[in-house]
Amino acid sequence: MKCRVCRGPAVIDVRRHNANFCAEHFLKLCRDQVAKAIDQFDMVAPGDRLLVAVSGGKDSLALWDLLVELGYATDGLYLGLGIGDYSDDSARYAIDFASRRGLRLHCVDLRERYGYDVPTAASATRRVPCSGCGLSKRHVFDEVALEGGYDALVTGHNLDDEAAVLYGNVMHWHMDYLARQWPVLPAARGFPRKVKPLVRLAERETAAYCVLRGIDYQVEECPMAAGNRHLAYKEALNHIEERSPGSKASFYFGFLERAASRLGAETGQDELGSCVRCGAPTPGDVCAFCRLVERATARPATGAESPVDLRPSGPRPGHGPGAGAGLAERTDGGRSERERAAR
Amino acid sequence: MKCRVCRGPAVIDVRRHNANFCAEHFLKLCRDQVAKAIDQFDMVAPGDRLLVAVSGGKDSLALWDLLVELGYATDGLYLGLGIGDYSDDSARYAIDFASRRGLRLHCVDLRERYGYDVPTAASATRRVPCSGCGLSKRHVFDEVALEGGYDALVTGHNLDDEAAVLYGNVMHWHMDYLARQWPVLPAARGFPRKVKPLVRLAERETAAYCVLRGIDYQVEECPMAAGNRHLAYKEALNHIEERSPGSKASFYFGFLERAASRLGAETGQDELGSCVRCGAPTPGDVCAFCRLVERATARPATGAESPVDLRPSGPRPGHGPGAGAGLAERTDGGRSERERAAR
Repeated sequence: MKCRVCRGPAVIDVRRHNANFCAEHFLKLCRDQVAKAIDQFDMVAPGDRLLVAVSGGKDSLALWDLLVELGYATDGLYLGLGIGDYSDDSARYAIDFASRRGLRLHCVDLRERYGYDVPTAASATRRVPCSGCGLSKRHVFDEVALEGGYDALVTGHNLDDEAAVLYGNVMHWHMDYLARQWPVLPAARGFPRKVKPLVRLAERETAAYCVLRGIDYQVEECPMAAGNRHLAYKEALNHIEERSPGSKASFYFGFLERAASRLGAETGQDELGSCVRCGAPTPGDVCAFCRLVERATARPATGAESPVDLRPSGPRPGHGPGAGAGLAERTDGGRSERERAAR
Repeated sequence: MKCRVCRGPAVIDVRRHNANFCAEHFLKLCRDQVAKAIDQFDMVAPGDRLLVAVSGGKDSLALWDLLVELGYATDGLYLGLGIGDYSDDSARYAIDFASRRGLRLHCVDLRERYGYDVPTAASATRRVPCSGCGLSKRHVFDEVALEGGYDALVTGHNLDDEAAVLYGNVMHWHMDYLARQWPVLPAARGFPRKVKPLVRLAERETAAYCVLRGIDYQVEECPMAAGNRHLAYKEALNHIEERSPGSKASFYFGFLERAASRLGAETGQDELGSCVRCGAPTPGDVCAFCRLVERATARPATGAESPVDLRPSGPRPGHGPGAGAGLAERTDGGRSERERAAR
């Protein structure tokens, strides 16, 4: 097994590229793919100040490392979800990464700042945990990015994540989500610009990148995400990819190239007002996040109440653990009403 | 387990309808679903003369039986493909069915009428067998339907078939195929009207229908179709359906309802001329079918020749055996250039 580039001993095969690579040229491949994605989709400009959503998993840490390598000015944002040891360990990986490199990492803890955590939210709202978790991440990421005046919020969604979300949206023909599944979202009133520079890398590749770069990361999957639909979609795609390498990329990029524009139907944001509590964009008086906070910080649910309506169209278990920290809107098939209405 | 309708003992559960049925009411369900599909998509009118493509498998025989039950004037068409015992047995089932009911069945044999069979075509063209088989069926079905002055050619594609074809077309974002994946194709110069009244029935249901109606059918899968991609797509969908009954129907009908029109881009047929040999529509001088016949009836291939260009975009293994006789164009992801250009 020889490196396609230098013919030296290879350390990894990338079947969808039908090629093997040595460590040096695999790392270069990763950098090139990220640079290409940024360029291809006009994600960010040189000199932009980027806020990287960091979970402590392979994707977000690889992303941060890659962006630094490529010369971008980045800070990180870690959101403590309060999921027991899983969150404690994840925080440690994120903090270690940042401190070893002298990078700035914002740490926000759901319980400290808002008085609840993901398990509490799940039990208070009687929704799947991914639902309140996704809503919380979207809100906090937006808030911190806007407060800090960053030019873009950067998330670690990789090719597997995006393909799995697309798969779910296609299986249900969620036209509004399909219309907006693009790796860049421009800034809008109340929303930062959002970009996904890892869309050209598979999760196996971000894992290998971390190993080769000596980056320690949270390898456990989120214990609260077990059985979510996103994981089933990933499995289905993996099965196809196994049989026919390159299928996943051709599915995702074929969509972007040929179908996305035809399925596009802009939804206006004119109808959005501001949340009377937090000021975030919302079609109602109080945004879904503030309703979640209210419910999750109230007395324990008695079981007699009806589930909180976090999302107008009901819960769609969102992102899987493989999605890293970058679990922002439009990628998990289950976003808040403000996102639905606005983007 | 009780029948949803009469509360008598049920003989079948239909998970996607979340209901069980006795024999009588299951058979009624099947008739109702076919009547509904015909109505929903304006497939045929009362009094139309229909030509049913019959393979001897469960779908096409159930379809023929259902159309007779619903009072339509139907003749059958069986095409002998020359696939050894499989074809011999299939013919017997089709002929038995017709003769017991006093129905008229056209029998065309590829070797008798055109001088080749599917195995010969596959080896002469060095393509997967499904490729030449699909092309042959499309051509002969069209020819016989037009010669006989039928109002429509009716094929036995069921929900599983259509969902699997859609799945393949979506995985590759074949925009031209997606734009035309509709259960009715209007007649056009050189093409009969084509309709698929089984789209609201799953293949498990057509099999149960045959069993309950005492219809003997070919239960073997085509020995030449093993490993084709269509079967892999069916498996992937079955996996999802298993987990979440109704997914397949929601995928297919969601597409028809919400996405098909947006993906539609009419392809003109103005550019089509007539084949100088058989008169069928073709963008070139000689149609793909006549090129196939020429190649398949010539001396055996030496192995030095290049594969016959049956399809401009290369071979896409088409329909699986589950698709019954109704393996007409636009449903197997691999249709001839004339179909591509014309429909």
